[in-house]
Amino acid sequence: MSQSVINQGFHFTLHKRLSRSSLARAGVIVTPHGSIKTPAFIAVATKAAVKRVLPEYMYDIGAQALLANAYHLYLQPGAELVEEAGGLGRFMNWPGPTFTDSGGFQVLSLGSGYKKVMSMEVSEGVDSSLLVPMRRRLAVVDSDGVNFKSHIDGRLHRFTPELSMQVQHGLGADILFAFDELTSLHDPYVYQQESLTRTHAWATRSLKEMSRLRAAHPERPYQALFGVIQGAQYEDLRRQAATYMSKLPFDGYGIGGALEKSQLGMIVRWVNEILPESKPRHLLGISEPDDIFIAVENGIDTFDCVSPTRIGRNGAAYTPDGRVNLTAKRYERDLQPVVPGCICYCCSNYSRAYIHHLFKAKEVTGGTLLSIHNEYFIISLVDQIRESIVSGTFFDLKRTWLGRYYQHT
Amino acid sequence: MSQSVINQGFHFTLHKRLSRSSLARAGVIVTPHGSIKTPAFIAVATKAAVKRVLPEYMYDIGAQALLANAYHLYLQPGAELVEEAGGLGRFMNWPGPTFTDSGGFQVLSLGSGYKKVMSMEVSEGVDSSLLVPMRRRLAVVDSDGVNFKSHIDGRLHRFTPELSMQVQHGLGADILFAFDELTSLHDPYVYQQESLTRTHAWATRSLKEMSRLRAAHPERPYQALFGVIQGAQYEDLRRQAATYMSKLPFDGYGIGGALEKSQLGMIVRWVNEILPESKPRHLLGISEPDDIFIAVENGIDTFDCVSPTRIGRNGAAYTPDGRVNLTAKRYERDLQPVVPGCICYCCSNYSRAYIHHLFKAKEVTGGTLLSIHNEYFIISLVDQIRESIVSGTFFDLKRTWLGRYYQHT
Repeated sequence: MSQSVINQGFHFTLHKRLSRSSLARAGVIVTPHGSIKTPAFIAVATKAAVKRVLPEYMYDIGAQALLANAYHLYLQPGAELVEEAGGLGRFMNWPGPTFTDSGGFQVLSLGSGYKKVMSMEVSEGVDSSLLVPMRRRLAVVDSDGVNFKSHIDGRLHRFTPELSMQVQHGLGADILFAFDELTSLHDPYVYQQESLTRTHAWATRSLKEMSRLRAAHPERPYQALFGVIQGAQYEDLRRQAATYMSKLPFDGYGIGGALEKSQLGMIVRWVNEILPESKPRHLLGISEPDDIFIAVENGIDTFDCVSPTRIGRNGAAYTPDGRVNLTAKRYERDLQPVVPGCICYCCSNYSRAYIHHLFKAKEVTGGTLLSIHNEYFIISLVDQIRESIVSGTFFDLKRTWLGRYYQHT
Repeated sequence: MSQSVINQGFHFTLHKRLSRSSLARAGVIVTPHGSIKTPAFIAVATKAAVKRVLPEYMYDIGAQALLANAYHLYLQPGAELVEEAGGLGRFMNWPGPTFTDSGGFQVLSLGSGYKKVMSMEVSEGVDSSLLVPMRRRLAVVDSDGVNFKSHIDGRLHRFTPELSMQVQHGLGADILFAFDELTSLHDPYVYQQESLTRTHAWATRSLKEMSRLRAAHPERPYQALFGVIQGAQYEDLRRQAATYMSKLPFDGYGIGGALEKSQLGMIVRWVNEILPESKPRHLLGISEPDDIFIAVENGIDTFDCVSPTRIGRNGAAYTPDGRVNLTAKRYERDLQPVVPGCICYCCSNYSRAYIHHLFKAKEVTGGTLLSIHNEYFIISLVDQIRESIVSGTFFDLKRTWLGRYYQHT
């Protein structure tokens, strides 16, 4: 079985579906800068740098592609500079495939103080009716685009679907996302509907602007554009979004928006049952091993996540028995590798006690080593998941792997 | 011409003297963990880690040996742990030769708040007679050793020559230094004399303790012990120290103590005219290219320095035309490498604009890249110096190189 979509240097080939009852699948995305075997974890290089880790280490541990952030790079150093430098990959010394997200998420979170709002959402006792107006006040969405303040210097900026495309075109990644509006779980249903209509109009405008840019720069390698499916926690809206977007000539799709962890699999399934099987599907910003299994099981091909470096900088490591924190006193004299038997650079060459020492000594290479381990851990988990789809043992792997990982947590 | 001192796995071979009138020389130090072609720059890994840089990069740029700090590692994680981990090199994943300094400098600087005193010394208008009593109050030196407070938690500790040897023996470096007393340029002559007598007594005790430790652990690779020449800015004391220490069975020598930059060459010459030609000589803690030329010209074989990583973390880079700061606005859109034509990892793969961006974005890999460049810059300068001694063109190199470097500063 092999289905593929070919589009001037970009195509997706589906190699294997796990079973009739599962949406899990294995394939390969080909881009002008190389191929990505799917399912694949896309490591995050928000500001055109994987935090603490030089790209050679990412390459050595098997990272297939990196994802950077249009919002951050638009504010600094600017897309023109990255373009002049030869594009995102050349700028940050990463020869492989790259993604950029649309900036929609950041414009409506960082650009509005929304992070504060989101953390208030999860606190108990906060009247959620207050949250939406607060967000509206900070980043102003209209039918044409979003006004927001830079989180760096507070200056006012405006993002539109056209500008997001121009920025992403300038950055030069292989896979781009259409500009979308991020909603919150606390936005009322009527607002979610209204927002979805806007996101769909913006999808069409993103496609149109991208066509114009491609035509104006025929010498450029093909940049694939993925449409983003919103609709929050509402089945009808998610299905409506998937149906609408399926009809548009996107090269692939992203599933975005606020997702409650408990609903992740269900929401992804609603969408992926509708999206065309021949196009790749990316889940934006998930984080934990159980989420990865659930996403893949429900038809996701690629996903990105900042967790491996974020938890690594804070002293934490993934292990087959759950997450551990190397700054804990009990690792002070522990000369074993972080994960005995792990073949990553960190575990092959350093002890828990050494990493513990680096954190106590405030040596940032401690975070480097754990970030390398954590990226390798997730990448090799996804490698195993891919193999288990091909060999038909996905559910065995899921049961064994998650059983051990969550037994201790 | 070839002279060598062989001592169970450690020896120094002198290959070439530049001329009769100069003390500059080229040779090789052989240690149980590999050889060091001299003159050599020894990169600093204070707390068993080169700041921001993983050891593979140090190896790739030609670092021959790393120097760590007995004081820091004694306080944390402790010499026992490093010993249990297989020694300093194994602990920090550095397979080559290693040095540890005695802790004398840090005990009397960090361990006493002396850094503050030293910076007051260089300020104008400070009554220097106040400084010495201040230092005495903070770290208490007696004939047997030094009481000091940990700069980490303020706890009281005591270092003696015996403890310094035990700590360094446990750390397991290839080249160790005898425990010495650091004096200040503002200590009166009479105190310098008294201190020198103490340092010499401590040298004998260091040798004795090291012999005992070697005999107790015959299975261990040979650890060379270098005696430290003190005497501040006084010719008679420096010559007296060199004469005294020359008679002791050290494997090599370190030149330590407060040095005014303008007197560096003279002081090193006083000492090296007396020290036996057959043993290697290390200059502790110099920093700038002109100091390197002056040290080598006056008979220094190895020297260590934190500057390449320290200035790199702060955004500065060595270039043939002097030091530049990449955080300056003028590099914001500059797509050239830090040093055009430089073959280091940083200059081969990244632009000034990218590094500028990383610093503005607070991505610590900016400091990593500049540290790599700076370490390579100094290491390759010393490589050139070594070749110029062998080919007899040292003074041409010195004139051309320093003329260009300091023209702009």
